[in-house]
Amino acid sequence: MITGMSHVSIVVPSLDAAARELERKYGLKIGPVTVNDDQGVRMAYIDLGNARIELMEPARPGSPVGKFLQRNPRGGIHHFSLRVDSLQATTAEIEHKGARVLGDGKRQVNVHGARIAFLHPHDFLGALVELEEYRG
Amino acid sequence: MITGMSHVSIVVPSLDAAARELERKYGLKIGPVTVNDDQGVRMAYIDLGNARIELMEPARPGSPVGKFLQRNPRGGIHHFSLRVDSLQATTAEIEHKGARVLGDGKRQVNVHGARIAFLHPHDFLGALVELEEYRG
Repeated sequence: MITGMSHVSIVVPSLDAAARELERKYGLKIGPVTVNDDQGVRMAYIDLGNARIELMEPARPGSPVGKFLQRNPRGGIHHFSLRVDSLQATTAEIEHKGARVLGDGKRQVNVHGARIAFLHPHDFLGALVELEEYRG
Repeated sequence: MITGMSHVSIVVPSLDAAARELERKYGLKIGPVTVNDDQGVRMAYIDLGNARIELMEPARPGSPVGKFLQRNPRGGIHHFSLRVDSLQATTAEIEHKGARVLGDGKRQVNVHGARIAFLHPHDFLGALVELEEYRG
């Protein structure tokens, strides 16, 4: 079951430059940088209190995020993420209703250890949507 | 000052079809449809508790949202919106720091009567960002 908004994710050419720009222009503070080797991204978050902004920089050229940046050299909004109570129960239910969950069915976790999955954009109004297990 | 996440906004070819799909596949309930004549859009919201999803359907072909749909016929993520404590103070401060606020300086309000403004995507990492005054 979808229970809330987790974050909006933006691909950027440079995480360091993005962090400097957002802090200088908007007073937004960027948290620690982590690396997701599976996805080939360097990532950081801005905590807005009720939800977050995720920043992603390609860690290698051929990664999915690297390809997004080739199509959108300045960067841009890549996906948004919704909280779910149980990832397993929610994906089972929505697959039963005909929505496609991307990937090979292998368990995926984010940098915080939370279970995640992505939906096919054709099944969510053309938007790439991540589901993130959240038991806050 | 930016104080939180307000919503993610998705452009759709048909608000009614989008509402049916999101309810059927994900159990998401869409609120009442409103029309913004200035922007040429029909709109509705999904309340997620901590933030919302906004759906926008063009109300006329030549509107900004209609043009987005020409480029993205299935629809997709159009912008996201951040809460600010005072729209006037926040836009004055960020313009002073070199970020561009779109429009002709005229006061804009959303369907709920809250003051809003859009930032130039080049000033927010390639993303179109709305600021919305929120005194919740």
